[in-house]
Amino acid sequence: MAAQGSLSRSRAVALDAGDPLAWTRDRFAWDAGEVVYLDGNSLGRPPRAALEAVAAAGLQWQERLVRGWDDWIERPRGVGDLLAETVLGAGEGQVLVCDSVTVNLFKLAAAAIHGRPGAIVCSADEFPTDRYVLAGLGRELRELRAASSETPTADEVARACAGGDVAVVCLSHVAYRSGGRADAPAITAAARAAGAIVLWDLSHSAGSVPVSLDAWGAELAVGCTYKYLCGGPGAPAFLYVRRDLQDRLRSPIQGWFGQRDQFAMGPAYEPAAGIERFAAGTPPILALAAIEPAIRLIAEAGMDAIAARRARLTDYAIELFDGWLEPIGMELATPRAADRRGAHVALRHPEAWRLCRALIERSRVVPDFRTPDIVRVGLAPLTTRFSDVWDGLAALRELLATGAYREVDAAPRRVT
Amino acid sequence: MAAQGSLSRSRAVALDAGDPLAWTRDRFAWDAGEVVYLDGNSLGRPPRAALEAVAAAGLQWQERLVRGWDDWIERPRGVGDLLAETVLGAGEGQVLVCDSVTVNLFKLAAAAIHGRPGAIVCSADEFPTDRYVLAGLGRELRELRAASSETPTADEVARACAGGDVAVVCLSHVAYRSGGRADAPAITAAARAAGAIVLWDLSHSAGSVPVSLDAWGAELAVGCTYKYLCGGPGAPAFLYVRRDLQDRLRSPIQGWFGQRDQFAMGPAYEPAAGIERFAAGTPPILALAAIEPAIRLIAEAGMDAIAARRARLTDYAIELFDGWLEPIGMELATPRAADRRGAHVALRHPEAWRLCRALIERSRVVPDFRTPDIVRVGLAPLTTRFSDVWDGLAALRELLATGAYREVDAAPRRVT
Repeated sequence: MAAQGSLSRSRAVALDAGDPLAWTRDRFAWDAGEVVYLDGNSLGRPPRAALEAVAAAGLQWQERLVRGWDDWIERPRGVGDLLAETVLGAGEGQVLVCDSVTVNLFKLAAAAIHGRPGAIVCSADEFPTDRYVLAGLGRELRELRAASSETPTADEVARACAGGDVAVVCLSHVAYRSGGRADAPAITAAARAAGAIVLWDLSHSAGSVPVSLDAWGAELAVGCTYKYLCGGPGAPAFLYVRRDLQDRLRSPIQGWFGQRDQFAMGPAYEPAAGIERFAAGTPPILALAAIEPAIRLIAEAGMDAIAARRARLTDYAIELFDGWLEPIGMELATPRAADRRGAHVALRHPEAWRLCRALIERSRVVPDFRTPDIVRVGLAPLTTRFSDVWDGLAALRELLATGAYREVDAAPRRVT
Repeated sequence: MAAQGSLSRSRAVALDAGDPLAWTRDRFAWDAGEVVYLDGNSLGRPPRAALEAVAAAGLQWQERLVRGWDDWIERPRGVGDLLAETVLGAGEGQVLVCDSVTVNLFKLAAAAIHGRPGAIVCSADEFPTDRYVLAGLGRELRELRAASSETPTADEVARACAGGDVAVVCLSHVAYRSGGRADAPAITAAARAAGAIVLWDLSHSAGSVPVSLDAWGAELAVGCTYKYLCGGPGAPAFLYVRRDLQDRLRSPIQGWFGQRDQFAMGPAYEPAAGIERFAAGTPPILALAAIEPAIRLIAEAGMDAIAARRARLTDYAIELFDGWLEPIGMELATPRAADRRGAHVALRHPEAWRLCRALIERSRVVPDFRTPDIVRVGLAPLTTRFSDVWDGLAALRELLATGAYREVDAAPRRVT
C-alpha cells in the first residue's frame, strides 16, 4: 500500500497538526504520567466539564438536599433527548438514560417477546452480557454465524428469520471483537419483513459512527455511555423505544419511576404514557451528571465530523498495519471498508494476550485484549491523535519484531 | 405528658450540648443558607468525605483510565461487606451494592418464586415500587391489612400464610408512611414455619435502627443507601442473600457481572458461585464511590449508639407533639413505643399537603409529605439536632395555630 516514507512519525505529527478536530482533545482531563491510550473503546477519557459537572451535582446535593429532585427527576429524559438529537438520530421522547446496558436490554427484550411466539436470533459473536440476558429469557436462542467479520448481513438475517418463527433479532451495530459494522437499515427492514423486531446494541457505535435510529426504521435499541460517549466508569446506559411502539410494550420491571403518576403513590401500577415507562428505580444522579458534557462537546464538534475523523484514524491504523504488522505475522480482523467498521481495529495474533501485557508493562501503551487472540486498538475520535496511533503500533511492531513480549508473565488478569 | 417548661428551646439546646453523638454532625457538608432539614429519611445529607471520595473517583478515572477497573471491579462486593458488618448484622459474602432498590427487589423476588408455587404477600401499605414490582411478577398478590400502624404483626403474617400457599412475603422493616417497625425475627420465623420466604425492604431502617439479618434468620433483603446511609441521590442500592440460599437461587437478569468467569467472555451463562451472581451490569462507579464514607462514619460512631440517638430524637419529637400539636388537631400515626418505630415520625392532618408547602416556603423547614394526609418528620440520627426538632415542630405549631398555612398555594408538586 503506502510507501515506507509515509509511515514516518513526522507524517503522523503533520496529520495531527492539520486535523480540523484536533481542538477537542483540549477539552479533556489529562494526567502527568500519560500513557498512549488506545482503549477509549472500553472506557472513554474524562471531559474536564464532566468532572466539574459531578462536583456541581455534589454541591447541589449539599445545597438543595431533597429539593434537588425538582431538577434531577427529569435528567434521565433530558439527557436522553439530548443524546437522541446529537448522537442517535432520533426525535425527542424516545430515549431514556437509566440503569445499565444489561438491565435495559433485559427490559426491552422481555417487553418485545411478551405475547409474541418465536425464537430470539443473535450473532454467534454477540457481546457476552447480551447473549447471557437473551438466554435467560426462556426462549430458543439461535446463534447466527456470519460469513465474515462476525457481523451478519441483511441476507443472513433474512434467512435466519425466513420461517416466520422469530420474535426478536438482537445485534450489535459494531461488533465488540472484530469491529465490523452491521448494515443497520437493511437488517432492520429484513427482520421486519419476516415479522421480527430488531433490538440494536449501540454500545460500540454511539459517538463514533453515524447512527440514525429514526431513519433506519429502528424499533428498539440500547447502548452504553462510558465508551465513545465518555460518561465515566459504569455510567448509566441508554434505551430507545420508537414512539409508536411505546404504548404497546411494557417493562417487566414495574418500578415507581415508570409509573404514570409517581408521587400519587397509588396502589396499582399504571405505566407512564411515554418513554418514561421503561424507567425502573431511582437513577444514580452523581453518575448521571457526568454524561451530559461529552454529549454537548459532540454537538459542538458535530457527529458527522467526528465520524469522519474516526474513518481517518482507522484508515491510518490499517495503513500502519499493512506496512509494519502484516509482514511479521499479525492478521487484520476488521473489515477494510471504512463504512463497514467502527472506531476500533482488531489485530489477530496467537500471542495477543502476551502482546497486550507487554504493551502496557513495557511500552506504556494501553490497548485491550479480547479472547482468544485479539489485540483491540481503540481510536476514540475525540481524544486519539495520529501520533498516538503511530506510537502504539510502533511499540507493537518492536515487541513483535524483537520477540521481547515473550519475557512478559502471561498470568491471567481479571479486568477488561 | 411533659410539663410546659420542658418544652422550651433552651432545653433542646441543652440536649444537643450533652449528646454523645453531637460530633457526627461536623463530618457533613453544610450550606450557608441553611434550612431546618427534617427529610433525611428521603435523602440523607452529604458527608464531606463522600464529596471528596467522588472527586477522588473522578481523578482515578482521569489517571488510571480503564485500569481503574482493577480496583472498581470489587467495589460492589467490598462496600457490600462493609455495609453488612457495620449496619446489617450480616457476615461477609452476603451483601452486594448494585442497581436500584427496584431492580434488586425484582431480581430477588423473581429468584425466590422461581420453581415455587404460591402467592406473594405484602403489606397493604407497602412502598409503591415494591408493590408495583411484585404485581408485575405474574403471581397473585395478597395485601395484608395490618390492625394498627400499617405494620403487620407475626400473627397476622402467620394467618396470611396459614394455607401453605404463599411463596414469598415482602415487607418493609420500617413502613415508609407510618414509621411503624415490624418484628422482623418473629415475622421471619412465622413465614418460614408456613413454607414462605421473607424478602425484607430495609430502605427506611438501615442506618437508623438495629438490623441483624443473620440473627433474624433472614433469607433475602434489599434496601437503599440514599436515606439514613447518606450515599447520595439515587446511590446504588444493596441486596442480601443468605449464604446457604445463594447456590439455589438465580437472578432473572443474567448479566456479565454475575457470570462465573466474567472476562473469559464464554458463550454460555454460568452464574458466579457466591453473592456476585446477583449482580447484573456494569456498576456506576462515581455514584458508588459516595457510599463508603458514611458507612465508615457509622462504624466509628457505632450502630447501637446511632440507634439509641434515633430513639432519643423521636421520643423528643413525640413529646413536643403531645404538648403542642395533638391539642390543636394533629394525630400521631407512628407507634409510641421506641422499639416499634423507625427514625421518622408521621403526623396526620387533613391539610398535611398545605402544611408541608407552608413549612418549606414560609418557615425554611423541610419535612416530607406522603399521601393523603401525612407530614413526615425525619430525624436522621447523624445530622439532626434536638434544636432542629424544636424549630421544625414550633414552626408547624405556629402555622397550625394561626391558620397561616391556608394562604399557601396547594397546587400539586412533582417530586418527593
